[in-house]
Amino acid sequence: MRLSEVDTPALLVDGEALEQNIATMAAALPGDRLRPHVKAHKCTSLARRQSAAGHAGFTCATIRECEGMAAAGLGQDLLLANEVLDARRLGGLTAAGSRITVAVDSAETIDAAADGGVREVVIDVNVGLPRCGCAPEDAGRTADLARRRGLEVRGVMGYEGHVVGLIDAAERTDRCRAAMELLLTAHADVGGELISAGGTGTYAINTWANEIQAGSYALMDTAYGRLGLPFRQAAFVLASVISASPSWAVGNAGLKAFGMDHGNPALADDGSVLFCSDEHVTVTPPRPVGDQLWLVPAHIDPTMAYHERLYVFAGDTVVDIWPIDLRGW
Amino acid sequence: MRLSEVDTPALLVDGEALEQNIATMAAALPGDRLRPHVKAHKCTSLARRQSAAGHAGFTCATIRECEGMAAAGLGQDLLLANEVLDARRLGGLTAAGSRITVAVDSAETIDAAADGGVREVVIDVNVGLPRCGCAPEDAGRTADLARRRGLEVRGVMGYEGHVVGLIDAAERTDRCRAAMELLLTAHADVGGELISAGGTGTYAINTWANEIQAGSYALMDTAYGRLGLPFRQAAFVLASVISASPSWAVGNAGLKAFGMDHGNPALADDGSVLFCSDEHVTVTPPRPVGDQLWLVPAHIDPTMAYHERLYVFAGDTVVDIWPIDLRGW
Repeated sequence: MRLSEVDTPALLVDGEALEQNIATMAAALPGDRLRPHVKAHKCTSLARRQSAAGHAGFTCATIRECEGMAAAGLGQDLLLANEVLDARRLGGLTAAGSRITVAVDSAETIDAAADGGVREVVIDVNVGLPRCGCAPEDAGRTADLARRRGLEVRGVMGYEGHVVGLIDAAERTDRCRAAMELLLTAHADVGGELISAGGTGTYAINTWANEIQAGSYALMDTAYGRLGLPFRQAAFVLASVISASPSWAVGNAGLKAFGMDHGNPALADDGSVLFCSDEHVTVTPPRPVGDQLWLVPAHIDPTMAYHERLYVFAGDTVVDIWPIDLRGW
Repeated sequence: MRLSEVDTPALLVDGEALEQNIATMAAALPGDRLRPHVKAHKCTSLARRQSAAGHAGFTCATIRECEGMAAAGLGQDLLLANEVLDARRLGGLTAAGSRITVAVDSAETIDAAADGGVREVVIDVNVGLPRCGCAPEDAGRTADLARRRGLEVRGVMGYEGHVVGLIDAAERTDRCRAAMELLLTAHADVGGELISAGGTGTYAINTWANEIQAGSYALMDTAYGRLGLPFRQAAFVLASVISASPSWAVGNAGLKAFGMDHGNPALADDGSVLFCSDEHVTVTPPRPVGDQLWLVPAHIDPTMAYHERLYVFAGDTVVDIWPIDLRGW
C-alpha cells in the first residue's frame, strides 16, 4: 500500500527513524539499564522491537497495559509504575506465569497488592513531582510494612516528571540530581536491586538510577523535540486537505487525533497550525484540496491513545500495520 | 452493579440528567427541528434515546459515525456535516438503504460524492469560522456544479462555531444573526429544504436555520456549563484516589481520559484540579486513598473518544452499560 492510499486521519511511523531511535537508546542504555515505558506507544508490536534491542523488562502505567504485554509474550518482567487499589487482575497475570511488580506508597496499596496476589513491589518515592509516592523519609517504613505483608520489595522508584521536560540542560541536570538524591536516600532505607526512575528527557543525565523508564524516545513529539536529544521524530498524523480558502486550508485530523495538553500539533514542513476542532485542523498558508498534511503531535502518549493502529512506512510505502493494542484500562 | 464496584477510570452518565436534557431539547426543538450531532457522544445507544424523543435525522462528523449509525438501524437520514475526498464507503451505505447526505464545498468534494455513489449533498457555506465551507457568494455556483454531476442538493449548512461558545448571550445572539444572514444569502442562491446550522450554544437563538445540529446538550461539559443553558451536567469521569499526601491527592484518571483542549477537568464537588498526567489527576485539598473523585470534562466530544463504554447510573447503581461504538474513522 502506498501512503497516498491510506485513509486519513492516520498515525504514521517512520520505520527507519523508529529503528534508529531504538538503536540509539539501546547503545546508551543497553539491556536492563532501560525499562522501556509502553504508555508512550501502547503497541505490543513496537514493544517487541524494543525487546529485540535487548530490553527484557518493561514499564506499564495501567493494568490493561500489563495484560496486553503478557498476552503478547512480553511479560518476563513488567513493572506497573503506578498504584492500584485492586490488584486481582495483576495477581491473575502473576499466577499465569508473568513477572509483575507493582508500585506501592501506602498501607492501602500494599494491602491491595498482597490481597490481589501480586508477589513483588517497589516503593514509590516522591522526588519532587506533586503526584504519587511516599515521602523519602517514609520509604523504609513503607518497605517494612510491605515485607510484613509477605511481599518481596525489589527496590524503589521515583519519577522526576517535574524535570524531564526542562529546556535548559544544566537546570535539568541539577534538578535531576536533587531528585535522585532523595531517591537514593530512600533506597538506603529500603534496599533491593531496583532504583527505577527517569524518562526520555533525563535518560542521559540520570546516572543515579540503575534503570530508566523512558518511552517517548521511540516515537518523539514536539515537546521532547525541543530538548536537543539524539532521537528523530518518528510519529506523524497524516491528514488530507478537505477544504481550502484563499487564506487557509483545512485538514481532516483534529482534537480526536491528537493529545492536546501540550497545545496544537505542528506541521512537519513549513506552515502554521491555527487551531484544531474535533475533526479538523486549520493551517496556513493555504494548500489545494487533496494535498496531504504531515502533523507532528505535541504530546505522543495521549495521541497514541486515540488511534486504533499505526502505519509503519518506508519512503512512500506502508510496510507494516500495527494495532495500538494497549489502549483503555 | 454499584458505582463503588466500577473499575476506574470510568465514564459515568447520570441517566436522569440525560433523559431530562433530551426532553428539554425535544420540547424546544421537536422532531426535525433538531438533527442531533453524534460526534458529541459517539454512542448509538444514546442516539437511540434521541431518536425515541422524536429526532429521526442525525448529524455525523466522520464516515465511521455514519457506518455505525446505519448498522444500529439509525440510518434514516444521516448528514455527514463534513467534506470527504473518498465517498465510496458512504456510497456503500446509500446502496444498502441508508439515506446519506454529505457536505460539499468544492469541485473536488462534489466529484468525490458523485464518484463514490452518494446521491444527496448540502452546500457547506463558510459563515465566519475559519474552517470548511465555500464563500457565501460561491454557494449558488457550487450547487449548480453539484447538480450537473447528478447530485440532489438538499440545501445549505453553515456552522457558526466561532459563536456557539461566547459567554455573553447578547453578543452570541448578534453574531449568530450575522452568521445566519450569510447562510440565508447562500440559501437564496442554492435552494433546497435544508438550512442546517447551530449547536448547543445557539440552539435557542438560531431561529434562521430550520434544523439545529446540537450534540453536547445531552451530556454537557464545563465549557457549555458556563453559558447558563437549561441542561444539566450528565457526564462524569470517576476516578479513585490512589495516593495521598498532606497537601494533595492523586486520582487514577488523566490525560488519556479527558479531551484537554479546553483545559483541565473540574471536580464536581469542592476542590481544585492542579494538573493532569497521562494516568493521574492531582487535586487539592487532599483526600484519603480509596475515595472517589467525580470529574467533569472540560470538553465532552474528545473525552468520549477516549472511552470504550459508559456506565449509566441512577443513585449509586449502574443501570446500563453502553459501548461508545462510533470511535475512530
